[in-house]
Amino acid sequence: MAKGSAKDERAVTPQSENFSDWYNDVVLRAQLVDRGPAKGTMVIRPYGYRLWELLQSALDGRIKDTGHENAYFPLFIPESYLKREAEHVEGFSPELAVVTHAGGKELEEPLVVRPTSETIIGEMMAKWIASHRDLPLLLNQWANVVRWELRPRMFLRTTEFLWQEGHTAHVDEADAMRETLQMLDVYVEIARDWAAIPVVPGEKTAGERFAGALRTFTIEGMMRDGKALQSGTSHYMGTNFAKAFDIKYADASSGGQQYCHTTSWGMSTRMIGAIIMAHGDDKGLMLPPKLAPHQVVIVPMGKGDAAGPVLEAVDALVAELKALKVRVHVDDRPQVSMGFKFNDHEMRGVPLRIAIGPRDLENGVAEVARRVTGEKESLPLAGLAAAIPGILDEIQAAMLARATEFRDANIHTVDTWDAFLEATNTGWARVLHCGQPACEDDIKAASAAATPRCIPNDGEPEEGTCIRCNAPAAYGTRVLFGRAY
Amino acid sequence: MAKGSAKDERAVTPQSENFSDWYNDVVLRAQLVDRGPAKGTMVIRPYGYRLWELLQSALDGRIKDTGHENAYFPLFIPESYLKREAEHVEGFSPELAVVTHAGGKELEEPLVVRPTSETIIGEMMAKWIASHRDLPLLLNQWANVVRWELRPRMFLRTTEFLWQEGHTAHVDEADAMRETLQMLDVYVEIARDWAAIPVVPGEKTAGERFAGALRTFTIEGMMRDGKALQSGTSHYMGTNFAKAFDIKYADASSGGQQYCHTTSWGMSTRMIGAIIMAHGDDKGLMLPPKLAPHQVVIVPMGKGDAAGPVLEAVDALVAELKALKVRVHVDDRPQVSMGFKFNDHEMRGVPLRIAIGPRDLENGVAEVARRVTGEKESLPLAGLAAAIPGILDEIQAAMLARATEFRDANIHTVDTWDAFLEATNTGWARVLHCGQPACEDDIKAASAAATPRCIPNDGEPEEGTCIRCNAPAAYGTRVLFGRAY
Ligand SMILES: [Zn+2]
Ligand SMILES: [Zn+2]
Repeated sequence: MAKGSAKDERAVTPQSENFSDWYNDVVLRAQLVDRGPAKGTMVIRPYGYRLWELLQSALDGRIKDTGHENAYFPLFIPESYLKREAEHVEGFSPELAVVTHAGGKELEEPLVVRPTSETIIGEMMAKWIASHRDLPLLLNQWANVVRWELRPRMFLRTTEFLWQEGHTAHVDEADAMRETLQMLDVYVEIARDWAAIPVVPGEKTAGERFAGALRTFTIEGMMRDGKALQSGTSHYMGTNFAKAFDIKYADASSGGQQYCHTTSWGMSTRMIGAIIMAHGDDKGLMLPPKLAPHQVVIVPMGKGDAAGPVLEAVDALVAELKALKVRVHVDDRPQVSMGFKFNDHEMRGVPLRIAIGPRDLENGVAEVARRVTGEKESLPLAGLAAAIPGILDEIQAAMLARATEFRDANIHTVDTWDAFLEATNTGWARVLHCGQPACEDDIKAASAAATPRCIPNDGEPEEGTCIRCNAPAAYGTRVLFGRAY
Repeated sequence: MAKGSAKDERAVTPQSENFSDWYNDVVLRAQLVDRGPAKGTMVIRPYGYRLWELLQSALDGRIKDTGHENAYFPLFIPESYLKREAEHVEGFSPELAVVTHAGGKELEEPLVVRPTSETIIGEMMAKWIASHRDLPLLLNQWANVVRWELRPRMFLRTTEFLWQEGHTAHVDEADAMRETLQMLDVYVEIARDWAAIPVVPGEKTAGERFAGALRTFTIEGMMRDGKALQSGTSHYMGTNFAKAFDIKYADASSGGQQYCHTTSWGMSTRMIGAIIMAHGDDKGLMLPPKLAPHQVVIVPMGKGDAAGPVLEAVDALVAELKALKVRVHVDDRPQVSMGFKFNDHEMRGVPLRIAIGPRDLENGVAEVARRVTGEKESLPLAGLAAAIPGILDEIQAAMLARATEFRDANIHTVDTWDAFLEATNTGWARVLHCGQPACEDDIKAASAAATPRCIPNDGEPEEGTCIRCNAPAAYGTRVLFGRAY
């Protein structure tokens, strides 16, 4: 048993008591992460990293299906590069980590550790694109990036994090916007169909837009404390980025030089934070089967003479499950109690637990328990393996339904300031807003820091006056406001 | 057509004229890489990165099959950490890149950009291991690392490179040595069965051992210029590493604290350099089918009315090949000539080219050309797709046979100093050696920098005297010497 096992027996802080403490307890107790030695860094432990690998594999598949190619750009960026795009660097300066010494001496020009690879990719696009035949250029990178964090939070805000950043160049706005929305759809699909999070896709207001973007789209997930987590963004940069890096192509008809229209889009290890906070409860993590490192845990019971036949039955079941590509884990630790094991796998969010003891074996059954409902049933061992993929699908669907129900119960369409305050204390408010950044600031200051999360893509047309200042409403539809991570 | 196309038409430097220029020409012309803006950094372009992804996927599969779990450790390491293991840091100091400023101010303690994650992994192992039940602990990480390079070379020596580093902890020497050799075998297998490189596995002499290791094993590949490229290493650290980081476990029988025996092993983007140099020729790259981003390129021919039916036949063939999981690429660029395309795909090392023109279509055939032999044959279109996987296997086998023949023709068993010099000018020498580091240094200085590459694992027992100093031979078998990258 690992060190700190006494501490491991302690319950986590209940969500209702302190959600933030609950989160910190769970990420450590479930062995997703450990603290890194340098400020704001994290060690992603095997269980957490497997979750990331499964998410990454799903997303990478979709990125490739949609015609993108992966590439890799250098970690170090000469400081002068970042100054190229003034608007961009202003957004990043206080977050940069800078290498000043290398190879045993001081560098002539300091190197910035990439906060994104945007600038180098811009340089390369300018080099690689000559004609309309080179477009669209559809690139993606999986990499670590660094943004200095003063108030780090595991997965949510760490000095170093893992992500993918897509950067694409197109002949015109129409093609670039089609790409921007396509990748937003991919993020919606990954969140919904893999992470079981019914995110709301929509556009950011001008005040919340990415520096340099003409339009920023986001997927917003509702966490169990009612706050919003921005879980992926997709930006249409117009020709701003192309102008900063001189990304031009020879036009098909005229042969004249035109600036490309570019996009960028990213999803990161932050998404792990979303999965933890969208599904977890006081028992710990609750992982969607499609992304769970262990989809099924089998706990054999019985001691002495009775143990042998149970282990044989377990081995047979494991073999069948593996043949069905089910990720199965057997917990046969002799040194810990059944109760400890049950709690441990609940803490780690394993979707399905199968317990088999000598009595079960005599009766030809096993006890099958679902993490999402807590429901236990005794199922015949004959045919059990074959039933598991279907049960996992049911659990996946139940988790999405549970999260959707929670989300919908916590979004309120409101038209008065008092109702707005009430709604954003526990969830999100769906309101008409004037679209003025100053009014957004005023709302943030006058509420518990509620900010516009997005203008949902599927909002009903509606006109009226601003929830806060009574000026005419912008956007022609309602905006979602909420407290955010 | 991309910028620089005029330059792209130029032939590469022949290998016989200047192998190093040939290499530099090919990596750029085949669009594997581009130069990064900071000294010694590289941009891995989509074609090069896909090759890496395929290699990575094969190796990751074997790493997981052998029971290891991936994790991720922070990029930044406090400087004080590296001082923990004195012997280790001495080896790295001049190669380190150091972050001194972050978050807009000077850091209290500088952060080193990881040259390996060894030190942090050591810290974590000490934290995670308590009992013999926690062993073996089998970790692996895929990551970027940084070692400052004064004479960078794409893939071979770059300031930043991508790799995997495995770190494992065991109860005793026997288990750790079993692991060390198992991972060496995995590297042999990946090199041989995927990269078609018949590497020689063996042990490094004391003078070439990894700092802190008790035993270092390597796989050495023979490049087309007769030099050796160390393509993967596996180290048994004894308890040295465990003592430096206090990695202990409670013994099963006595309960007393014992130091763990640890191993580490790594393979990097350097392996891409091995693939380029083990197979390439004056026409460019030659990629083994199992790792080729494009296993097959189809070039449709014919203009005007004749083009339509050809493209239809090509589409049908592509659909069939994709169903067979063949990585197929269609080159239908209208703006470049057939000759340009043929040269281009030879340069990029595509194993198999299929050309289909209107005349071929009338005759129900296609021209199929193999990159490895240059052999062309006219094959019936009916049943062509089904024949391709078999042809790709033949090409894979032919490449391994060609590389094995070349390797064996360039390793000479020699017993005189003159013969040694001749052998190491063009390839490797298989010699008896005294095992003294001073004698190794003398040999290096007196030859064209020939160094001991390894003591092959499968060497025949043999005794005698040193090729250089006539002292009694060590190791009980012959050693391979050669010039190395
Ligand atoms: Zn307003
Ligand atoms: Zn000697």
